[in-house]
Amino acid sequence: MRLTVSFLPSHRLPVGLDPAAATAIVVDVLRATSVMSAALASGARRFVTFESVEAARQWAAGEADHRQRPLLCGERHCQPIDGFDLGNSPAEYTVSKVQNRTLAMTTTNGTRALAAAANFQHVVAASFLNLSAVAQRIRDRTAVHVLCAGTDGAITGEDVLLAGALAARCRDRQGATLENDEARLAAELWRAGCGSATGGELAERVAERLADSQGGRNLQRVGMGDDIRRCSQVDSVAVVPTVIAREPIMLSEEESLA
Amino acid sequence: MRLTVSFLPSHRLPVGLDPAAATAIVVDVLRATSVMSAALASGARRFVTFESVEAARQWAAGEADHRQRPLLCGERHCQPIDGFDLGNSPAEYTVSKVQNRTLAMTTTNGTRALAAAANFQHVVAASFLNLSAVAQRIRDRTAVHVLCAGTDGAITGEDVLLAGALAARCRDRQGATLENDEARLAAELWRAGCGSATGGELAERVAERLADSQGGRNLQRVGMGDDIRRCSQVDSVAVVPTVIAREPIMLSEEESLA
Repeated sequence: MRLTVSFLPSHRLPVGLDPAAATAIVVDVLRATSVMSAALASGARRFVTFESVEAARQWAAGEADHRQRPLLCGERHCQPIDGFDLGNSPAEYTVSKVQNRTLAMTTTNGTRALAAAANFQHVVAASFLNLSAVAQRIRDRTAVHVLCAGTDGAITGEDVLLAGALAARCRDRQGATLENDEARLAAELWRAGCGSATGGELAERVAERLADSQGGRNLQRVGMGDDIRRCSQVDSVAVVPTVIAREPIMLSEEESLA
Repeated sequence: MRLTVSFLPSHRLPVGLDPAAATAIVVDVLRATSVMSAALASGARRFVTFESVEAARQWAAGEADHRQRPLLCGERHCQPIDGFDLGNSPAEYTVSKVQNRTLAMTTTNGTRALAAAANFQHVVAASFLNLSAVAQRIRDRTAVHVLCAGTDGAITGEDVLLAGALAARCRDRQGATLENDEARLAAELWRAGCGSATGGELAERVAERLADSQGGRNLQRVGMGDDIRRCSQVDSVAVVPTVIAREPIMLSEEESLA
């Protein structure tokens, strides 16, 4: 396996990477890809993602006629959106609320990162919640590119940390070569901050790092610091949100749903 | 002091940073800013930088009439340029070759990073060679932004390492606050890799890290691995290349030359 990392969706693809023959792992730890992991683990049927609030509303309205209506979910500036069913906190996505439901989602950075991965052969979404499940899913792939969402065009530490966890694990357990400096730097940061920890200590270390990151600071500022601990629960779910359709972008646990 | 870092010149400036009231530190460890540090320490009068080979040639031709002709220097794809006087290896910039000379320079990434810093109040160039001299120069500034050159639009570990050295030093010795995740991540990488070393051991650790970076790999591939050791000689010179004019961009040790 050859593994590369981009710290931002806007970065040029690494030299030699052919997206048509590669798997993209989209990372938006705080909080879009954590929400996707939690919701699919709670039995949600699928996510359909949109760049704008209006596009999400329109699509959901069009679907309402012929099946149970989609739930509108997501955030703007970390806050729930007026008239939407759910915000962007993983804890909201309980079985009673989302089982078998379609979720029409719009978030600022996560949606943009998914769009940047549009031309990859396979696309999955990773969070700390499903770290091992993602590593297991990609174990036989030859080219893997981890795409960090960042925040409004700025690199964020929480996404780099998960990229490093994925890079270090693929290198150490599956013999992957880290093919660009972003992959090597991320793996080094993971090793330095969390590499030797396991179990509850690992979740604790991850939570400390997330609280110190830009995304974590933003959440604490608006009173949503509890989400940091929820998004730090390493390997708490076994699902892998996987892109099953492209226009609009849909993700589901089942690769064969589309 | 509030300190921020950009891992690439193309990144958006951090929120809240006003370049007109800030100092930019341009970093291209392998090798443009190391060459500038070495050459000014060898008594070179000034650098004048150009984005293209042709622009450097034309400017040098125009200057040839009324003073000692400028020396043409720089690289393309790590290699010396046909017909130029000097390449991009710091070891070439000896006293006998460059003392009192004007150097018309073009390099791929370093020149681009200087251009990206054009609207900052003050601009200096940093390398491991002049790390302490730069830290000393900026000690009373209130806003400092470290701008990494990268390579062809990709983040490179050698530039991030020096950004981290500057960020960690300003934080630990001058009470600077690190204001974005790029600054915090860089400081963490420096601490993890080199933070506790001093003297010869520090230069050794820096050289190991540079050899493992993308820039270091590129140099070793074209047989220029010796430059890595030369560019790792922490605090071997006391000069600070400083932008003294903007069109074209000129740098000199003397802030008052312009």
